[in-house]
Amino acid sequence: MSDFNSLPLQATGKPPYLLTPGPITTTDTVKAAMLRDWGSWDGDFRQMTRQLCDQLLDVANAKESHVCVPVQGSGTFAVEATLGTLVPKEGKVLILMNGAYGKRLVQTLDYLGRDYVTLDKGDYLPPMPDEVESILRADAEITHVAVIHCETSSGILNPVPEIAEVVVRLGRRLIIDSMSAFGAIPVDAQRLPFDALISSANKCFEGVPGFGFSLIRRSALEQSKGNAHSLSLDLYEQWAYLEKTGQWRFTPPTHVVAAFLQAMKEHAEEGGVAGRLARYSRNQLRLVAGMKALGFRTLLNEKWLSPIIVTFLSPQHDNFDFNTFYDRIKAKGFVIYPGKLTVVDSFRLGCIGQLYDEQIDQVLVAIKAVLAEMQIESGHAELPEENAVTAA
Amino acid sequence: MSDFNSLPLQATGKPPYLLTPGPITTTDTVKAAMLRDWGSWDGDFRQMTRQLCDQLLDVANAKESHVCVPVQGSGTFAVEATLGTLVPKEGKVLILMNGAYGKRLVQTLDYLGRDYVTLDKGDYLPPMPDEVESILRADAEITHVAVIHCETSSGILNPVPEIAEVVVRLGRRLIIDSMSAFGAIPVDAQRLPFDALISSANKCFEGVPGFGFSLIRRSALEQSKGNAHSLSLDLYEQWAYLEKTGQWRFTPPTHVVAAFLQAMKEHAEEGGVAGRLARYSRNQLRLVAGMKALGFRTLLNEKWLSPIIVTFLSPQHDNFDFNTFYDRIKAKGFVIYPGKLTVVDSFRLGCIGQLYDEQIDQVLVAIKAVLAEMQIESGHAELPEENAVTAA
Ligand SMILES: Cc1ncc(COP(=O)(O)O)c(C=O)c1O
Ligand SMILES: Cc1ncc(COP(=O)(O)O)c(C=O)c1O
Repeated sequence: MSDFNSLPLQATGKPPYLLTPGPITTTDTVKAAMLRDWGSWDGDFRQMTRQLCDQLLDVANAKESHVCVPVQGSGTFAVEATLGTLVPKEGKVLILMNGAYGKRLVQTLDYLGRDYVTLDKGDYLPPMPDEVESILRADAEITHVAVIHCETSSGILNPVPEIAEVVVRLGRRLIIDSMSAFGAIPVDAQRLPFDALISSANKCFEGVPGFGFSLIRRSALEQSKGNAHSLSLDLYEQWAYLEKTGQWRFTPPTHVVAAFLQAMKEHAEEGGVAGRLARYSRNQLRLVAGMKALGFRTLLNEKWLSPIIVTFLSPQHDNFDFNTFYDRIKAKGFVIYPGKLTVVDSFRLGCIGQLYDEQIDQVLVAIKAVLAEMQIESGHAELPEENAVTAA
Repeated sequence: MSDFNSLPLQATGKPPYLLTPGPITTTDTVKAAMLRDWGSWDGDFRQMTRQLCDQLLDVANAKESHVCVPVQGSGTFAVEATLGTLVPKEGKVLILMNGAYGKRLVQTLDYLGRDYVTLDKGDYLPPMPDEVESILRADAEITHVAVIHCETSSGILNPVPEIAEVVVRLGRRLIIDSMSAFGAIPVDAQRLPFDALISSANKCFEGVPGFGFSLIRRSALEQSKGNAHSLSLDLYEQWAYLEKTGQWRFTPPTHVVAAFLQAMKEHAEEGGVAGRLARYSRNQLRLVAGMKALGFRTLLNEKWLSPIIVTFLSPQHDNFDFNTFYDRIKAKGFVIYPGKLTVVDSFRLGCIGQLYDEQIDQVLVAIKAVLAEMQIESGHAELPEENAVTAA
């Protein structure tokens, strides 16, 4: 039986940095917060849960209007729970799709048996407010619009505020999958009129994975009793129980919650959303500039790049093989991420987590060295012009 | 904003021991396994997942016949996922109920809209094989029988092997919620013919909470495509994706998984199921003897006591108040658990987790002292005779 603790570390003796969309590299202090066991029924843990919810509402300036409902599992669980709880059986959802996570919304509603229509922009084009407006005007049955904040599969930051304006003006309700954006992209519930905004522990707040949460308009949640398709994913009941007892309905991931509270503290110390956005933006600019200098091109036009994750087109070179590229970069201390596009070959580099100028510079050095090892010339003119997508 | 890290520790400077049904007290080495970040797409983590599944199948001697499907979330998520995946839309389940977790199976099937009948034995009586036999004989539509292994709400260990014999002889399929039993109560899939056995990370394997798992008969799972009511809880798809890619479909709780592998290692070092059963049984005998000496009585007749958790009747004394009792015992370093019975006043003491003779003796000293502080005489003859339930 092999022992995972003996898996190779990088030369420095440290595990590799994760340049991924999450789980990301967390601080040692966040991980150290997991070195204690908590009773989930106990008052101390109830206090931790209350603190968690209060702080998340604060980040979105949502305390007046919304409640925070955490739910066990990954981000997908939180998205499914939110859709299942908020969309009534006779509801109809307009899903704005431009990548893998938009597709997942469709899949989710297929399971739920809820009615929906889609605006499908393919792999990387943003859904535009005027397109949303004409669909909503033509279909009075649509009750909800669901959109991905940062579509992590391409890295595009969708024009959510502009879309929200249309949705609310036409009297529909907005659900935002902000999994990879919340915590680093500003959200103000008093100006961005969402019914629900969903995220998880292990993205821009830099906690460890194990739960997601949904910030839900109180008045909408109050009307949602009996909608849910699942006991575990019923956010109305989760909220009602939390209100009554201060506890999660079922065993919470206590250690992951403790880590998250430490992560929230460090988020605040870094200057909250503004501070984090500044660092991630710096990471992204430095990374993109460095990658361009190595001859790589981004999938998206700069206008649509997010500070969360960037998709680079794979070199069109006979020697390029993603798995080899991946393994060699990992051996130098960095875990990168495969692409998730249907039409073009690509890979992704995340800008989130415990990454600073130093790590960005190091990963650029590593990538340069790997290109040399693989005998792929830098400045590869081989990248086909037609792949350099200029969105909108 | 209060800081949870400053919450009071007990006099010894250590957090309290958890005498609960989970989350339980884990070793420092299990918690220390969480001090590293893992990429969930990465080969190292895929290897960890494979190891996790292989080892769990080994514990149940199930490798030939079953597969292990882990799922994010708490134990309830894993139970719901198993029922939703295995019970076809036209299936019908006989639910054997004798406590809160049996009730939860009913609730789950209500959400799923699957047909069921129940055998409800109330708070603490065991479902008996002959009762199961007559129900199954009278109703040919019943396809599945669902039973709780250790019904944690009373602590009763249900006669699962005897029930399994009947279920299989009559050609039905068995689903066992072994949440609080697996890892400490022997299970041999070659002799106990279950289609699914469900448990979670934070019970008898002494990991931290964050995922559950289901050991599912391969032939049954292969027939279950399309049954599930939920994207997140579809164990067929989770398994198919694991088989294809070695990855969980959605972000796994990487740190919790790492802790679990360490916990499995320590489980094996303690002598596996036999070793753990021996320690928990010793804990239980010592605890019950000590509590009896203090004048407490167990809800159940000795025959039905499990080595997992024991329900004690609350003293029928004017000075007894559970919250005060709880807080005072906690101040002495132990977190106990409230009762979960509908008819009699009770509390529970868990025997699982990092508890040894020393901790059992200490908690008995603490309880004795608290009784004195609360001016509740020991040897309280006030306990009503009629509460001393003698099951079957
Ligand atoms: C926008 C978006 N939605 C949903 C998810 C799914 O989250 P999880 O993998 O935690 O289920 C992700 C994960 O990266 C995401 O980026
Ligand atoms: C027998 C049984 N089933 C189900 C559960 C539910 O598990 P969770 O609280 O992790 O959802 C428990 C929890 O104690 C249990 O003991």
